[in-house]
Amino acid sequence: MATIKDVARDAGVSVGTVSNVINGAKVGDEKRALVENSIRKLDYRVSGWARGLKTQRTDCVLIILPSLENPFFTMLLSALEKKLYACKKQIFLCISDGDKEKEAKFIELAVENKIDGIIGITYSNIEEYLTEPIVFVSLDRHLQAFFPIPVVASDNRLGGRTAAEVLHRGGCHKLLCLLTISSRNTEVRKRKTGFEEYCQENDIFYNSIEISENQIKSIYSSFESRKLIHDILLAYMNSDFGDGCIDGIFASTDHLGIVICEELRKMGKRVPEDVQVIGFDGLKLINQGDVLISSIEQPVELLAETAVDSLLKLLNHEEVPDVTNLPIRFVDGGTTKTRYSDV
Amino acid sequence: MATIKDVARDAGVSVGTVSNVINGAKVGDEKRALVENSIRKLDYRVSGWARGLKTQRTDCVLIILPSLENPFFTMLLSALEKKLYACKKQIFLCISDGDKEKEAKFIELAVENKIDGIIGITYSNIEEYLTEPIVFVSLDRHLQAFFPIPVVASDNRLGGRTAAEVLHRGGCHKLLCLLTISSRNTEVRKRKTGFEEYCQENDIFYNSIEISENQIKSIYSSFESRKLIHDILLAYMNSDFGDGCIDGIFASTDHLGIVICEELRKMGKRVPEDVQVIGFDGLKLINQGDVLISSIEQPVELLAETAVDSLLKLLNHEEVPDVTNLPIRFVDGGTTKTRYSDV
Repeated sequence: MATIKDVARDAGVSVGTVSNVINGAKVGDEKRALVENSIRKLDYRVSGWARGLKTQRTDCVLIILPSLENPFFTMLLSALEKKLYACKKQIFLCISDGDKEKEAKFIELAVENKIDGIIGITYSNIEEYLTEPIVFVSLDRHLQAFFPIPVVASDNRLGGRTAAEVLHRGGCHKLLCLLTISSRNTEVRKRKTGFEEYCQENDIFYNSIEISENQIKSIYSSFESRKLIHDILLAYMNSDFGDGCIDGIFASTDHLGIVICEELRKMGKRVPEDVQVIGFDGLKLINQGDVLISSIEQPVELLAETAVDSLLKLLNHEEVPDVTNLPIRFVDGGTTKTRYSDV
Repeated sequence: MATIKDVARDAGVSVGTVSNVINGAKVGDEKRALVENSIRKLDYRVSGWARGLKTQRTDCVLIILPSLENPFFTMLLSALEKKLYACKKQIFLCISDGDKEKEAKFIELAVENKIDGIIGITYSNIEEYLTEPIVFVSLDRHLQAFFPIPVVASDNRLGGRTAAEVLHRGGCHKLLCLLTISSRNTEVRKRKTGFEEYCQENDIFYNSIEISENQIKSIYSSFESRKLIHDILLAYMNSDFGDGCIDGIFASTDHLGIVICEELRKMGKRVPEDVQVIGFDGLKLINQGDVLISSIEQPVELLAETAVDSLLKLLNHEEVPDVTNLPIRFVDGGTTKTRYSDV
């Protein structure tokens, strides 16, 4: 493959002149023609990274996601990839698996390699690694750095409110809110806030339980996680709160909601006849089919679009809101009794 | 941020000397100490890409996948990312959506940017873009280039045989094989070969139908695709082949198999009582739970591991087999009557 030196030699100009032609700097018409001719003749290809070293822009974006096992993250990645490709940007991918060191390494590489920016969902304490300013758009999580990091998220508070409303309108009187929440400052926490707000405003009995995300790393496959959920449900299902048992459950994710439905059925409870269950995310069977349980659907495409738009604005030194909350909606997956039209 | 020029100025040496220190070339002890001192002092960070321009190795691998909607591809990506990270390689991601131009652009960029290599599943006719040799490991698909491109795939032939065997041992007498197959030369085609072989050897009645992948781009969401599957099933279910109807169906993917189960149930057929159905891939509910239908499970982790190992071997100029076929296994998802122990 021809190098920039070959082009310079062939055109009879300096490497600097070739570089100037490539990077659109001012060059005399005659010399430009000579260089362009040699570039064509030698089939010289400009390395995008070589260009990046010069222009300080590589058109690469680092995407950090916690895992690809959760289809919500997959759908988000798919949407981000489409949107970024439309903006002629390529993706560097980091699946952190909650590994802070891994995230730190990728962020370091991103800074070193002059990547345009980062769009990420991270629940690690990575702030200490953000020692140099970089364009960073965070999904869900608030990050404290010495430069601003805007947050894009669903309207989690309204989502929590809507979940409570769906259960309430479906005839539930005793609600339980089960959340798996990171100890970090995330927007996800607002799901609980919204849920509790609605219950308080409408004088509905409720209990909330927060389970640390570490405790239930893999709800589905881990025996311990299942047992914990099972035991919590058993305790609540066998308790009478004055005038009845828990008859409506809000799970902070569909993952958790599905496990709850399975465990309830194992206990002989019918869903939604005896207990109604609503999750959060709006996951579908193999990402295309029916929703798996009644849920608060996150606007995945819009989340991706807004994150990319924010990134582009930051790159253009335009202003971006600190937090953007995007509309959610109720989707009926048969585990609640409420109809769409009721909400 | 400090540049290589700042380091050179501070150390009182030429940029070339700094570059030699960075790239491990021979430099006198005194000068090396000066440079290393300045690098520390100025907190100069070597750009990996700058290093790549010099060493012709960037430790980046391009992953090409057709989509992320199919969980099989997602699980594969997840496994590839883990394995590559363990080898200190980063991922550039291209989700092609069957867009040949997009794949071509990414391959071109990979060559230009001196990416280490490509691991990809592609069903496009991209051979014409492979004009320069690049380390390329293909999953499933045979690519014709002027340089060798090894193929890593599941043992699709044994998979097809096993699917026929599962239906046969479950008591089926009239088999139907429904395949969605790309017109390209892929290993996937062997699913049919293996299925038909088993039927012929055991004197079992069978019919095979191939549906072009273009016709059923999105089986789940497209009305036309559904209708096509529905009509084919209706035609077969209402036909008597001498001594009975079709009682066992092999679908070339779980996606297709799930749609077939749904359509059969809509027609009033019970699965597996009236008709047994087996798919291919081994998809699980939200990637962690139960398998969705009886299936031939692909060894996703092993596929990823073998693809990465092949890539590393090619980079070391070691030999790699033209085709590697990896073991599959039957997983019982309740849509067949055969037990594990029978196969």
